[in-house]
Amino acid sequence: MNEFELIRHFFARGAGATPDVALGIGDDCALLQPPAGEQLAITADTLVAGRHFPVDTAPEAIAWKALAVNLSDLAAMGAQPLWFLLALTLPSFDSDWLAAFATELQRLAQRYGIALVGGDTTRGPLSLTITAVGSVSPALALRRDRAQIGDLIAVTGTLGDAALGLHLRGARAGNGFDALIERLERPTPRVAEGLTLRGLANAAIDLSDGLAGDLQHILTASGVGAEVDADALPMSEAFRRLHAPARRLSLQAVGGDDYELCVTIPPAHYQQAAAQVPLTVIGRVVATPGLHWHRDGQVVPGPQHGYRHFDGSETPDAR
Amino acid sequence: MNEFELIRHFFARGAGATPDVALGIGDDCALLQPPAGEQLAITADTLVAGRHFPVDTAPEAIAWKALAVNLSDLAAMGAQPLWFLLALTLPSFDSDWLAAFATELQRLAQRYGIALVGGDTTRGPLSLTITAVGSVSPALALRRDRAQIGDLIAVTGTLGDAALGLHLRGARAGNGFDALIERLERPTPRVAEGLTLRGLANAAIDLSDGLAGDLQHILTASGVGAEVDADALPMSEAFRRLHAPARRLSLQAVGGDDYELCVTIPPAHYQQAAAQVPLTVIGRVVATPGLHWHRDGQVVPGPQHGYRHFDGSETPDAR
Repeated sequence: MNEFELIRHFFARGAGATPDVALGIGDDCALLQPPAGEQLAITADTLVAGRHFPVDTAPEAIAWKALAVNLSDLAAMGAQPLWFLLALTLPSFDSDWLAAFATELQRLAQRYGIALVGGDTTRGPLSLTITAVGSVSPALALRRDRAQIGDLIAVTGTLGDAALGLHLRGARAGNGFDALIERLERPTPRVAEGLTLRGLANAAIDLSDGLAGDLQHILTASGVGAEVDADALPMSEAFRRLHAPARRLSLQAVGGDDYELCVTIPPAHYQQAAAQVPLTVIGRVVATPGLHWHRDGQVVPGPQHGYRHFDGSETPDAR
Repeated sequence: MNEFELIRHFFARGAGATPDVALGIGDDCALLQPPAGEQLAITADTLVAGRHFPVDTAPEAIAWKALAVNLSDLAAMGAQPLWFLLALTLPSFDSDWLAAFATELQRLAQRYGIALVGGDTTRGPLSLTITAVGSVSPALALRRDRAQIGDLIAVTGTLGDAALGLHLRGARAGNGFDALIERLERPTPRVAEGLTLRGLANAAIDLSDGLAGDLQHILTASGVGAEVDADALPMSEAFRRLHAPARRLSLQAVGGDDYELCVTIPPAHYQQAAAQVPLTVIGRVVATPGLHWHRDGQVVPGPQHGYRHFDGSETPDAR
């Protein structure tokens, strides 16, 4: 086999024909059968070595994160994952690296029921773009622009673990560090949670660039504001043990890479939602535009935006 | 506006809501309404600076080529273009560059009726991945694996122009050179031709990596062979004037970047097809596996594969 054929071989393993894939990897395009009566949700995310992950990251962790961040975007729309394409740019052909990468990619894909149907392989500085497609009933899609005044603001899981793991990476400090790195390298896309919250939440976004910036996207799109309790942001046990209190809000609201869902929910729906999805209420939607941080009932200063890709202040590997 | 907003501004201009785009750029996913009764054709292609185009290529030419090569893949399936996503990795934020790039991208998108619905912008070495989606009636899709013994093999347009333009670039030699560079930098995706050939051609592929390699993909997938007349490959006026005869076959069958369609057509359909699409017959499908070159009725040696991304022999900018 030449290198082309080897690469195809790696990715075709376990790709498995599902009934909605009429033609998978290997032609000019894949041919796909969309579910009747549904809309398609489609998203693309790029990871660049040295920016979104350290250059020496294990191929398994790269594969996981590249697919997980796209699944997270589907989750934030309440979409059922269907298919994805992988555009992979590699500095060289390394069959061990490719085998490890492809195996982990297919493992995660099978867990979430999403089929690899195509893509491209080129040579160049290491980076990956995954395009993921899901389906959602038009009336139930979780959009950013549907938050209503009076909605509760809630998040799944805990915030700040990945940012703290990155911060402590040089020190490899303390009991719980591994759990933080696991959150950084292998975020759990909240797909089941997104599906459950359809019809209950008014608006949703996934937390990739940090709560402050991502919540602002909901506020801007919906033309509303938010009051958020800085002390209410949920912490994991490892985070609670290892964080420096002075950095808590920055880690939890600016650090990014949480890949939890942030939703706004009418109070009347909250109990039903929280019975099925682990949620923490962190604030509420208000009429006054902007993001207003509170502590002990008082307005306090707090971060207004999250991670920014083109800021002069950013450093490589800062995520 | 911050840089995020500026980038969104550039790409949102003229993105224009079409009825099948329920939600475009700006949420976690786009929401799209697939055409009833059709399958989706989906493809992704990456261009890397210094590999697929010289680093100093004008932004307009990069935009054109990135979208055109994906439209060419849709054309090769006989698919109607619908939507695309752009994942753009940039070394720095340059608003002039972005404005020129986005304007040309939207110009080409409007010409082919394909809507930009999402994507990602990251910082890193310059590269682009476009994912394009089209629709096609399941019975009419032009696949690689449907060539039949006895089919005529035909191509649209002319072959070798882009490869010759690249070869002559240093010399900038002669009358017609500009036409060759135009073919290299602004290939014309044969979308209308692909749509017309549905139901007439048995198999199709687009010629991106050179006729020899791309035709081999049809032969392998269909389990057939081909006899091709080396003297029949169609030449443009500029190619005829500027090529060195000893290099003709290499330029026309290995050089790549033609973005013409290569189809196999039952002889009974050929007249009807050729009346609507400019076609040149270059050979026929035979039972004997492999690609067999002929000249003056005699078997002659000839290229067996096209451009290969991971060959040790390749040089950057070789395409």
